[in-house]
Amino acid sequence: MQLFAKFAAAALILAATAGAAWSDDLIVEKKTFVLPTYTTAAGAIIKDVRVGWEAYGTLNADKSNAILVNHFFSGTSHAAGKYAADDKFPGYWDAIIGPGKAIDTDKYYVIASDTLVNLNTGSPKTVTTGPATIDPDTGKPYGLRFPVVSIADFVRVEKALVESLGIKKLHAVTGASMGALQTYEWAAANPGMVDRIIPVIGAAEADAFLIAWLDLWADPIRVDPNWAGGDYYGKEPPLAGLAASLKIVSQQASHWEITDEQNGRQWADPARDPAKAIGNEFRVVAALGAGGTARAKVSDANHLLYLVKANQLYAPGGAATLDEAAAKIKAPTLVIYQPKDLVFPGPAVEATIAALKKAGTPVETFQLQGKRGHLDGVVSMTQAADTIRAFLAK
Amino acid sequence: MQLFAKFAAAALILAATAGAAWSDDLIVEKKTFVLPTYTTAAGAIIKDVRVGWEAYGTLNADKSNAILVNHFFSGTSHAAGKYAADDKFPGYWDAIIGPGKAIDTDKYYVIASDTLVNLNTGSPKTVTTGPATIDPDTGKPYGLRFPVVSIADFVRVEKALVESLGIKKLHAVTGASMGALQTYEWAAANPGMVDRIIPVIGAAEADAFLIAWLDLWADPIRVDPNWAGGDYYGKEPPLAGLAASLKIVSQQASHWEITDEQNGRQWADPARDPAKAIGNEFRVVAALGAGGTARAKVSDANHLLYLVKANQLYAPGGAATLDEAAAKIKAPTLVIYQPKDLVFPGPAVEATIAALKKAGTPVETFQLQGKRGHLDGVVSMTQAADTIRAFLAK
Repeated sequence: MQLFAKFAAAALILAATAGAAWSDDLIVEKKTFVLPTYTTAAGAIIKDVRVGWEAYGTLNADKSNAILVNHFFSGTSHAAGKYAADDKFPGYWDAIIGPGKAIDTDKYYVIASDTLVNLNTGSPKTVTTGPATIDPDTGKPYGLRFPVVSIADFVRVEKALVESLGIKKLHAVTGASMGALQTYEWAAANPGMVDRIIPVIGAAEADAFLIAWLDLWADPIRVDPNWAGGDYYGKEPPLAGLAASLKIVSQQASHWEITDEQNGRQWADPARDPAKAIGNEFRVVAALGAGGTARAKVSDANHLLYLVKANQLYAPGGAATLDEAAAKIKAPTLVIYQPKDLVFPGPAVEATIAALKKAGTPVETFQLQGKRGHLDGVVSMTQAADTIRAFLAK
Repeated sequence: MQLFAKFAAAALILAATAGAAWSDDLIVEKKTFVLPTYTTAAGAIIKDVRVGWEAYGTLNADKSNAILVNHFFSGTSHAAGKYAADDKFPGYWDAIIGPGKAIDTDKYYVIASDTLVNLNTGSPKTVTTGPATIDPDTGKPYGLRFPVVSIADFVRVEKALVESLGIKKLHAVTGASMGALQTYEWAAANPGMVDRIIPVIGAAEADAFLIAWLDLWADPIRVDPNWAGGDYYGKEPPLAGLAASLKIVSQQASHWEITDEQNGRQWADPARDPAKAIGNEFRVVAALGAGGTARAKVSDANHLLYLVKANQLYAPGGAATLDEAAAKIKAPTLVIYQPKDLVFPGPAVEATIAALKKAGTPVETFQLQGKRGHLDGVVSMTQAADTIRAFLAK
């Protein structure tokens, strides 16, 4: 089962895909890409780097029809299809990836890869390398001895994966949220390899506001004594802190319209009036807590801290400013965003659009509608299907 | 020194008040109001309730010129003036309260009161009753044995204070953020006592979105083992958790425009590249951390949890819906808000405005401009000075 769906968004994804016919479901398998040695952008060496990946469709003879899909902060490479016909949910972007869909697997060979330091270490279908991985030199998990990695490193590992398949050029690169960051990084760092990009609900810089919020996401983990400076493997993990962190991520990725509509001021338990005891909760609080707790059990706290750092360090192609980043991005770009987004607010994405235009990059834009804010970039993508299809055909 | 100014906003307040002439500074003193017994809205009894208060100006003979000012979540009753001529900063709304100012203390008698469960227990100038207070029945701090209180209780205690001064009717009630919540509560619960209200950066309901965020503010405290279920008095308090909580409050009360302008992607220490070690930070993170840590030392973690609960329980006059709340508010209302606010977003305040209009309440509105989001309702109020002055003169 796709992990994201286990979280609070399960109902949303269900609603978003309920109308689909399952008869043409893609059945997909997780593969593992191995790099015996990888040198990070900052110069550290990591041995035996492994990341999971999936592919949908068929690579054509001249290997010119590949599209790369990057996942979001808490996501995995399970972008489309199902592992088995009776899986409850397909991959998170199944509504736009598949036979005859916007990203048409009858035409394109779609690759999706797990990042380094992927959050979902408890998922048997996620393959990643990070602090929870056994360091081959010591036989013990790295913990905080794992080197800092950045969005640039995620892309460099992906590039090695793509090249291992004999692909010299990508028809397109896309992804939502952190996936958009990787998408911009791809275009800025590898201009000759990318024909077009579709960054979704993301900007071409990590500004101070994003850097600050990422730090706030990490804080509860560091407060949890079980975190123990990252050395908790084989002991009790910092589940309370990790759950609190994931609650913040989840709420910020949502929007007040859906939060209010789904919960209102209802109590968690009709027999326990929140006015009567400090521990009696409103429904929205209980739901958020249940989601965070469930999610923490299959996630790794150190990996979350490393993801935070990777996102804070994000600067496409090593650019010092947004204008410099935009100047490095030459590939025609379709920016898809949601004006109600509370993680990458409308004006932040619009600053990226303006910088790209100023730099002479061909830019199209598409605004998602919906009540879910940031999450609309995951669950409401059918709105953009025709625009994506046309952009890919250009 | 006013506590709010100690936090990250110190520079902002300094900037906002730098142009003022200090020669006409009000010199104010903190007084204490005592209620031998108070019964909460939910029916619990608290003995020896004490709250601090200040007053500016002179109560007229028929006691008809009183204006009540309610403070924000992390604030105190120090709304204007200085305790001593050489205080570094005046009260938080000094720009609009004083002789000849928008809330003119030559005309009005302005009362400002500390709430129950006020956060700033470490301030010698704050007087409050809450979990950190000694329970006269046991001789020990209440901790979580303190009864749940709500915004309605804050207002009921204030009403007792106002009545103790012989005041039967308030010329106006105002306040920012949580102060706006108390303002709406005053009008809804005591319609005969309030001539007009000026709620600033707040709405007339606590919706699920606000309830959820308040819970996220509280989470890091509960993760801190020093919190110990609230029984930390006389032991090591949960400062790490409390600091993390206050960081979230502070960042959400700000806005990306000011955050980015003040910090950009600068490093906290030019010698410590954030890409080189997991503990090397960006400047915005270090600044947020320093503010949270400093603030935690003078705040109480249980009081923050009780404030969270009081705000979650907020429902003006006990109304079940926003429309019901609006129907209880008859007093002419001047709503001041900031469309960039990330705590009470523009649309949330506009829903209140629409509900008040629908209910037939006379409503005027004023939009604050600025880069500081929610915080503009504290530090940028001179923009609204003429509007406030005219509204009070009606």
